[in-house]
Amino acid sequence: MKIGIFDSGIGGLTVFKEISKALPSFEIIYLGDTARLPYGIKSKRTIDRYSINNVKLLKSLDCKIIVIACNTASSYSTNLLKSKFKIPIFDVISAGVKAALKDNPKILGVIGTDSTINSMAYNKMILNNNSNIKVYTKACSIFVPIIEQGLIKKKHYDKIIEENLKFFKNKNLNGLILGCTHYPIIKRKIKDYLGDDISLIDSSLEVSATLKKYLEINYPNEFTKRKSKRSILLTDKSNYFDSVIKKIFNKLDFNIKLIDIK
Amino acid sequence: MKIGIFDSGIGGLTVFKEISKALPSFEIIYLGDTARLPYGIKSKRTIDRYSINNVKLLKSLDCKIIVIACNTASSYSTNLLKSKFKIPIFDVISAGVKAALKDNPKILGVIGTDSTINSMAYNKMILNNNSNIKVYTKACSIFVPIIEQGLIKKKHYDKIIEENLKFFKNKNLNGLILGCTHYPIIKRKIKDYLGDDISLIDSSLEVSATLKKYLEINYPNEFTKRKSKRSILLTDKSNYFDSVIKKIFNKLDFNIKLIDIK
Repeated sequence: MKIGIFDSGIGGLTVFKEISKALPSFEIIYLGDTARLPYGIKSKRTIDRYSINNVKLLKSLDCKIIVIACNTASSYSTNLLKSKFKIPIFDVISAGVKAALKDNPKILGVIGTDSTINSMAYNKMILNNNSNIKVYTKACSIFVPIIEQGLIKKKHYDKIIEENLKFFKNKNLNGLILGCTHYPIIKRKIKDYLGDDISLIDSSLEVSATLKKYLEINYPNEFTKRKSKRSILLTDKSNYFDSVIKKIFNKLDFNIKLIDIK
Repeated sequence: MKIGIFDSGIGGLTVFKEISKALPSFEIIYLGDTARLPYGIKSKRTIDRYSINNVKLLKSLDCKIIVIACNTASSYSTNLLKSKFKIPIFDVISAGVKAALKDNPKILGVIGTDSTINSMAYNKMILNNNSNIKVYTKACSIFVPIIEQGLIKKKHYDKIIEENLKFFKNKNLNGLILGCTHYPIIKRKIKDYLGDDISLIDSSLEVSATLKKYLEINYPNEFTKRKSKRSILLTDKSNYFDSVIKKIFNKLDFNIKLIDIK
């Protein structure tokens, strides 16, 4: 049983790592569309087109289940992909919202890229479940290149994190959804600023748990198999991406292959 | 006579503006590959492919002269494009270097994206002309999203500009080449930090002057015509890009059309 995960780039490797850990016996293919990243500032029309390309490619590699590891693609293209492809499709937004609602929060915050926040996908899904929840959202697109370029270690980038999160101070949030796969990397800095008691919802953990539950019910026999293969496919490879992957993941035990999307 | 200008995105509009001003009687088409931007962190292989796509499209629209307004594409793909397409091709790097060498400098600095700096295109071209010049280069990729997201107005982003330019302090630069079309927008801040007497070489001005000289010699009759048409084509349109264009250009008098690249 092959699971295909796609993301606009390499941030979704956080999701890939969690799913790899949770489902050792499943074969997993990660597709990062690095040649066309980022998605987070582009239009729905373009993101729909790229998302369809990605699922077609993963299906052609025999993936039977798709995970959208990219928040932007999840917010814009999940419904389209579900109607177009008749296979199970999991997305980080549904998983993140489900987790955020677990403890009956009254006030929630969401951070993400411009596209994710402008799509209102998180607000809509939260309010559809419980219209009494107060939702505060804030686009923090600048966090992505700061994390990717390994700049978070430098002291004065803290100021930028703080400036973006200032909006949430005194909002009495019960939880903050990290609506971009890069953000779990700066969890510690977010807590340092907003307070240690704030609950941060990390969609990579949530989508992995949701997927595991689904597979336990529908494919119990697959869990008894031996450890299975993992592959990482990228549509572009550059020194830049290599260095980012090293910065984010310390070490990666998988070969990374270059692949073209037609 | 149609001139085609391409860039990875909207930064090259600085070049488009200068050329539009310098050559009012020439028809000008600007192509911004916003659906696949940025180029500055991607590989030569991918940038070559995108650059070929862009020139093919501009040629299909009857452009007789091409200007590569993108430093990354200029550094990686100029030679390939010149050998593949038998029409005059101008690039920002040749123009920038020519201008930088005018006053017989001893020490030059270059800033650009990771790809531009890693390509060594500026160093090579400068040293080919005069091997006695000392060249210092520094990748400043983070400037691009900071400028695009309109964050330069905020005080603590100055720290990031300073941190990146610190390397050039006490290097006694005769000139600093702004090797990315976005950078002229922060000229003032660069001078504030490195000193008012430093000469900043702005390729958008230089490529426009080089092109004008070429046309005066080869197409003198074209200068007597009436004001001609300008068009801006983008491969993606989003609220994000609209707001960036407004931030960078105050006002734009041209219609922006969406176009697909096959």
